[in-house]
Amino acid sequence: MSDDSLIIAGPSPHRHTYTPPKIAGRYEHKHIISVDQFAKEDLEILFDATKSIRKRIRQHDRGLTEICAGRVMASLFYESSTRTDMSFQAAMRRLGGDVIAASNGVRFSSVYKGEDLADTIRAAGCYADVVVLRHPQVGSSYEAAYYLDKLNQRIDNKTVIISGGDGVGEHPSQALLDLFTIIDRKGGLDHQSLTLVGDLKNGRTVHSLAKLVAFYRPKGTRLNFVAPTSLKMPENIIDMLRDLNIQIYETDTLDDVLGESDVLYWTRVQEERFTNREEYDAIKDHFVVVPETMEAAPKNMILMHPLPRKHEMGTQADHDILDADPRSIYFEQMENGMFVRMALLAKVLREAYV
Amino acid sequence: MSDDSLIIAGPSPHRHTYTPPKIAGRYEHKHIISVDQFAKEDLEILFDATKSIRKRIRQHDRGLTEICAGRVMASLFYESSTRTDMSFQAAMRRLGGDVIAASNGVRFSSVYKGEDLADTIRAAGCYADVVVLRHPQVGSSYEAAYYLDKLNQRIDNKTVIISGGDGVGEHPSQALLDLFTIIDRKGGLDHQSLTLVGDLKNGRTVHSLAKLVAFYRPKGTRLNFVAPTSLKMPENIIDMLRDLNIQIYETDTLDDVLGESDVLYWTRVQEERFTNREEYDAIKDHFVVVPETMEAAPKNMILMHPLPRKHEMGTQADHDILDADPRSIYFEQMENGMFVRMALLAKVLREAYV
Amino acid sequence: MSDDSLIIAGPSPHRHTYTPPKIAGRYEHKHIISVDQFAKEDLEILFDATKSIRKRIRQHDRGLTEICAGRVMASLFYESSTRTDMSFQAAMRRLGGDVIAASNGVRFSSVYKGEDLADTIRAAGCYADVVVLRHPQVGSSYEAAYYLDKLNQRIDNKTVIISGGDGVGEHPSQALLDLFTIIDRKGGLDHQSLTLVGDLKNGRTVHSLAKLVAFYRPKGTRLNFVAPTSLKMPENIIDMLRDLNIQIYETDTLDDVLGESDVLYWTRVQEERFTNREEYDAIKDHFVVVPETMEAAPKNMILMHPLPRKHEMGTQADHDILDADPRSIYFEQMENGMFVRMALLAKVLREAYV
Repeated sequence: MSDDSLIIAGPSPHRHTYTPPKIAGRYEHKHIISVDQFAKEDLEILFDATKSIRKRIRQHDRGLTEICAGRVMASLFYESSTRTDMSFQAAMRRLGGDVIAASNGVRFSSVYKGEDLADTIRAAGCYADVVVLRHPQVGSSYEAAYYLDKLNQRIDNKTVIISGGDGVGEHPSQALLDLFTIIDRKGGLDHQSLTLVGDLKNGRTVHSLAKLVAFYRPKGTRLNFVAPTSLKMPENIIDMLRDLNIQIYETDTLDDVLGESDVLYWTRVQEERFTNREEYDAIKDHFVVVPETMEAAPKNMILMHPLPRKHEMGTQADHDILDADPRSIYFEQMENGMFVRMALLAKVLREAYV
Repeated sequence: MSDDSLIIAGPSPHRHTYTPPKIAGRYEHKHIISVDQFAKEDLEILFDATKSIRKRIRQHDRGLTEICAGRVMASLFYESSTRTDMSFQAAMRRLGGDVIAASNGVRFSSVYKGEDLADTIRAAGCYADVVVLRHPQVGSSYEAAYYLDKLNQRIDNKTVIISGGDGVGEHPSQALLDLFTIIDRKGGLDHQSLTLVGDLKNGRTVHSLAKLVAFYRPKGTRLNFVAPTSLKMPENIIDMLRDLNIQIYETDTLDDVLGESDVLYWTRVQEERFTNREEYDAIKDHFVVVPETMEAAPKNMILMHPLPRKHEMGTQADHDILDADPRSIYFEQMENGMFVRMALLAKVLREAYV
Repeated sequence: MSDDSLIIAGPSPHRHTYTPPKIAGRYEHKHIISVDQFAKEDLEILFDATKSIRKRIRQHDRGLTEICAGRVMASLFYESSTRTDMSFQAAMRRLGGDVIAASNGVRFSSVYKGEDLADTIRAAGCYADVVVLRHPQVGSSYEAAYYLDKLNQRIDNKTVIISGGDGVGEHPSQALLDLFTIIDRKGGLDHQSLTLVGDLKNGRTVHSLAKLVAFYRPKGTRLNFVAPTSLKMPENIIDMLRDLNIQIYETDTLDDVLGESDVLYWTRVQEERFTNREEYDAIKDHFVVVPETMEAAPKNMILMHPLPRKHEMGTQADHDILDADPRSIYFEQMENGMFVRMALLAKVLREAYV
């Protein structure tokens, strides 16, 4: 069993493992379910395609709609995620493709669990060329890929899955759009100081982003992890990052690193993650970015957030002030999400065309 | 602060106002959120486009699908409204455009209120060229327009919102399709006697329609308002109508005006609007249109209703008889809704093409 | 009143009946709501079109998208049915047509019942060229067809309905794809031994499939019905089949017929259908198909299932073994569903093109 493989949920003794395919320079007909599939070369290919697509969209280049014309994307969202869902749909449409989704949505039922997913993903695989799956269970995208492969063999299909997030597991397209935005704004990743703030223990976006940064093999790049003591970045990820020559600095105090940050990546700390309320009350004010935070921050720093945001950016009035700051680029980041997803869809469906 | 502006919900002291832009002969890139944006000239432009589109649809003119090809509409319905929703979607599709919507729908959460809307509308604005918003809160379409403008400045976009109704506030496309239907069937609006029946205090469709009638500046036109005493048309609207030379007659008895009505516009009186049940019981039978009502009505009168209908048109058996009456034009009115929405979408997205 | 007509729900004395039109060699502008509409000639026409479409899809023939270009399908699913819903949507898209559906779905409310359906179907009929309706009430598709006809007369439209299932009533497109799959795999229907297993009393798929088999007028074909004694195929269907020269064999024991079966069509027996639990416990193990069942089955038998499946195919581990058996063709059957629905949509919307 490879390090990247995962045991698929299933009744013993019928467990099986699944290892997502490495991109290795070729995207076509490959499932996209983990950042582990990407090496530096793959990221460069994808980001070049993203920039090209963004440029063509801004020029209203109608030729884009030739790329996925006649292809169908099934949107299978077992939990709501308006941004991810709408941006994948818009991405497919703008490539000329079509989108199908159950008119009443799909619901996750704990009763059928994996059994239902295995059959539903194969139904979607019969009708569509690509399935975007969002599911609350970790590993569901691996299971979906495993069963789609079986279907593809059976009915001579090449349907692929792109993960739109599986519980606290992975959300690869989010990490890809985050990394693209940083490189696009900073002109590269070498010698950057990236500060990731929030619940670094449970946050899949920060795990995936940190790994992608390392897979990009930058020179002299530093990752600052700012988290409450009980919600630190897991040791295995820290070790992996260090093995790949990323400098790491861990703290529970933003002030330690704010002044040197080129990128400030903010995420939420949820009260539910704490076992006692006093611990939460003691730290909560340190994990809110407000206009005063930006006053103390470098002039060329960029503030990112995966959205949606709640109290971790203060009140609506704070939002309005933060939104007006040119260093706040989370809406641009969100827009890049559509461009990165267009590049992904184009690559896996019709690589020769982009 | 202009008379047309609205205070956007938001935590004090960060309130702000928003005034929707006047159409003033030019629709392109303008939000459509209030009937106050329309002058007679604008209505004539829109209705001419509507007639042209209707004719082309009936001729199966495939050129229509060039108008919005490559453009994306996001459908954001925070409350269900099957007719409005499906007619906007069909309108966009028939113009060659694409539609995106969250696969599981969007839900209104009273916890996040405006905060969530401000960010969700900007997400939709990143991915789509036009957002159709239906929301249960009055003023939500103003707030959405305000935040979309901020996003557009930031990422150099021109996304517009079209309101699909905001609570008891406004529903401009409904009023536009109502007025179009009257003018189309009657050949004009001069010297017409229009009778509006139902809850005229809380009914947004009757408020908006009455205002649009006045903005059209017809000659010798009369508005009859038939409502229970406690649910009369608000004084400020009455005053505004009189200022614009519309003749007004108010009554609680349909018989006073049925015989002279050229148009009978029927809406529902809801029991929940009454503080005591006796008051409701005393009037309820007077606010149901039944086959006998039509027997007493003029031969060339038209009966309109915004739909859906419930007990205000009696039983299913009554419906069947009313539906068979050639004077009942509410299905034609509903069909016109798609044509008017096609004209609106074409105008705001690609004015030169229609 | 014809044998095929149905009394439409509605308040007495305003009941009315509706008889679905026979296909009789011509599909265009005909509602598809019952297998009773189909004679052998009609099935042959449809299956030829299905094969042609399947071939063109596999050749990536882009000309297919000309067939329904500019046409709109409304998806009205009052209960969830992910497979039927997504396959109709994919079918319409792959023919170049567009799909609309309420963004938040539609819900069945027992309060408004038929009244709401009558108006909602007419709304959909105003905006779309074809409405796919799934509804929990028996007869709802007849009612929808009745009211659509009234609308069509009124606004000079030709909108048709295709039933996606009405409660325990009918599900014609499922029966059509089942029969297509059998004939396609077996090269015909003559001299085949078809074994239908499960709740044959309440199962609409088995009723409809059995009827279609008979309408196809095969020679020497045998239907074996395997059901618990209390859930046998209704007498009126048995009589009808015998009148059409189908050989019938009824049993509660699969072993009686497994060895001679060319087709094994499996469906679920639900515990809720039994009045006492002991009766259910006594039979339940006989109505589960497991790997051992397949070991005892003929080598050229095919195993079919309408999906979704639950315990009637054992555990997830059993599923995996059954899925790997080349005789299990339920995924191919599911894929054929899209092709048959493409043929249906093409036929009713633009018969000259397919």
